[in-house]
Amino acid sequence: MHKLLAAVMTVLLLLPGCSTRHDTDAAPQDPLPSWNDTAARRSIVDFVQRVTTPGGPDFVPDVDRIAAFDNDGTLWPEAPVPFQVAFALDEVTERARTDPQLAADPMVQAATNGDFAQLLAGDRDAGLMHVLGLTHTGMTTDQFDKQVGDWLATAEHPRFGRPYDQLTYQPQQELLKYLRANGFRTYIVSGGGADFMRVFSDRVYGIPPEQVVGSTATVRFEMRDGKPVLIKTADYVFVDDKAGKPAGIHEFIARRPILAVGNSDGDQAMLEYTTIANPRPSLGVLIHHTDAEREYAYDANPPASGQLVTALQEAPTAGWTVVDMKNDWNTVFATP
Amino acid sequence: MHKLLAAVMTVLLLLPGCSTRHDTDAAPQDPLPSWNDTAARRSIVDFVQRVTTPGGPDFVPDVDRIAAFDNDGTLWPEAPVPFQVAFALDEVTERARTDPQLAADPMVQAATNGDFAQLLAGDRDAGLMHVLGLTHTGMTTDQFDKQVGDWLATAEHPRFGRPYDQLTYQPQQELLKYLRANGFRTYIVSGGGADFMRVFSDRVYGIPPEQVVGSTATVRFEMRDGKPVLIKTADYVFVDDKAGKPAGIHEFIARRPILAVGNSDGDQAMLEYTTIANPRPSLGVLIHHTDAEREYAYDANPPASGQLVTALQEAPTAGWTVVDMKNDWNTVFATP
Repeated sequence: MHKLLAAVMTVLLLLPGCSTRHDTDAAPQDPLPSWNDTAARRSIVDFVQRVTTPGGPDFVPDVDRIAAFDNDGTLWPEAPVPFQVAFALDEVTERARTDPQLAADPMVQAATNGDFAQLLAGDRDAGLMHVLGLTHTGMTTDQFDKQVGDWLATAEHPRFGRPYDQLTYQPQQELLKYLRANGFRTYIVSGGGADFMRVFSDRVYGIPPEQVVGSTATVRFEMRDGKPVLIKTADYVFVDDKAGKPAGIHEFIARRPILAVGNSDGDQAMLEYTTIANPRPSLGVLIHHTDAEREYAYDANPPASGQLVTALQEAPTAGWTVVDMKNDWNTVFATP
Repeated sequence: MHKLLAAVMTVLLLLPGCSTRHDTDAAPQDPLPSWNDTAARRSIVDFVQRVTTPGGPDFVPDVDRIAAFDNDGTLWPEAPVPFQVAFALDEVTERARTDPQLAADPMVQAATNGDFAQLLAGDRDAGLMHVLGLTHTGMTTDQFDKQVGDWLATAEHPRFGRPYDQLTYQPQQELLKYLRANGFRTYIVSGGGADFMRVFSDRVYGIPPEQVVGSTATVRFEMRDGKPVLIKTADYVFVDDKAGKPAGIHEFIARRPILAVGNSDGDQAMLEYTTIANPRPSLGVLIHHTDAEREYAYDANPPASGQLVTALQEAPTAGWTVVDMKNDWNTVFATP
C-alpha cells in the first residue's frame, strides 16, 4: 500500500492543477526586495499578514481587501511638474507648430516657453486650465487615448532622460504585486485625469482601467458618420483630490479601503476615510520625498504639486506609516 | 501497470481540485430553463457560444466580455412606479407620521396620498424631485443604506404582494448566471440611483456594488465626532439614462460592452454604443413587456416609466434581439 501511495503522489506532483502540501514548503522569495528592513516595511508586512491570516482576529475577506494608491508622487514622480501637465504642454506646443491660430494664443506661447508664472496667474490657474482644456476636451475618447499613447512613446523626462512611464517607483511596483498576491484589489485614486491614467495603468502598473479612480468630466455621446463616439467635454468636472477622494472612492469603488497610500495633503482625507473608525483593520501610508539625490526632496515646498504638511502632522496620532524614501527604499526607479 | 493506473485515477477523482476529462462528460443542465426555445433565446446562446469559442472568428477574451443590464423593467418591473420611487413615497409617508413639519409639506401629502398628478406637476417633475431630495440627501451613506434595507425588508409590491426584491425576473437571473459562467462580467447600467441599487445588487443579482453604474450625486466628506462620514447631497447630479448611459459606461466600466440588455428608449444609446461599429462581436437585447397577465404589457404608453418606441423602431435595422416576454419566457418571476 505504501508503494501505491508513493506512486499516486508522484503522479499527483506531475499533474498540472494538482497541488500537495509539498508545493508550499519551499522558502518564498522576498516579495519586497527594494524595501529596506525598516519599521516602514515591517508595518506593511505585518498588516498584510494580519488581514490574511485565516481565523486570526484581524482577518479580512478577499472581497474587502481594497488598497487605494495615489499616483503622482506615490507611484511615480510629480516633478518638475505632474506628468499630465507635461503632456498638456508638449501637446499644445506640438500642435501650435502647424496651427497658426493656436500659435498666436498667449497661453499656448507661455506653455511652449515653460512660463509657469504666466500659466498660473489669474483666478484658479486660468492659463493652465486653458491649456488643459485645449488638450483634454473636444476630441473623441479614442483620439485622446492615441494622443496620450503617442506622447508616452516619444516624450522624455527632462531630468532623468527616460520615457515618463519608465519612471515608476520599483518599491511600489513590488508592493502592488505583493498586495495582489495576497488577495488585495489595487486601485489608483488620483487627482490626475481618469482618461489619462487609463491609457497606461494596466500596462504600467497591472491595474486595469476600471480600477482607476481619477478626476473626470462628462463625455458626450454622439453618432458621427453612423458610428457612436464619445466627445470629451469640460462639463461636470469632478476633482478627485482632497475631500473628493473619499467621494470618488464611494462612487467608483463602493467599498471602504483598508489600505491607503499617498504622499501629500491631497491624500489626507483618503487616509482618514480609510483608517479612522474603520470597523476593519486598516493602514495608512505616506511616502515622504526625502531623496534629492535619487529623486526629489520636498514636503512643505514642492517643485510643483504635492505639498505635505498637515497630513505629516496627523501621521503620528493617526498611526500612519511614513516612508522615508531615502532610508526605506534601496532602489527608487523600476528598471525599464 | 493498468491496475496501478486505475488506482491512481480513482484517487484523482476523489481529490478535490483535481479534475479529469470524465468530469465534463456529463450532459450539462439547461442553463436557461425559463427561456422558451425561440429565436430570442437562440440568438443569445448563439452569441455567447461564438464569443467564447477559442480560436473561433468571433472569440472575445474574458477581460472584454462585458455585459451591461438596465435594471428597472429589465431585471425587475418598473410598474406601477419604479421601485425607487415607491421607496421615496413610503419613506416620506413614514417619516411624516412623527414629523409635523414634514407632514405639513403639500408634496409630502401628495406622496402619502399617491397623488401623482400633483407630484409630476410643474417644471421637471418638481414635486417628485422634492420628495426624492427629502429621501435621498442630507443623511450619511450608512444611514441611507439602512433606510433602503429596512424598506426592502418590510414593504410589499401593491399588485404582487411580495417584497420588491423578490420580484426579479427568473429568466434574467438565469441569463446573468449563464453569462458569468461563460466568463462575462455582468454590470448594471441603470437610471436608478447607484447608492440605492448597491444596497441589494450583490444579494439579489450576484452583482457586486462596484459593478453597478447608476445615477449619482456627489457625497460630502466630513468628520463627525471624530469619525469620517459621507453625506449625500444633490450636487453634481449625473443622470445615467439615455445618452448618459454610454457616458456612465465610459466613466465607470472604462470598456465598451459587447452585450447590452434594456427595455426602453432610455437604453437606446447604450445599445447603439454597444452594437454599432463595435470592432468586437456584439449583441443588443430589448425586453418587450407583452404580458399583462403575468406582469405588464406596454411600450408607447407605460404605467409610469419605460417608454419603448424609438428603440423598438431601430431594433430590426440594428439587429437587436427583441424578447417578447409573453412568448419567450415560460416563467416571469424568480421564486423567493
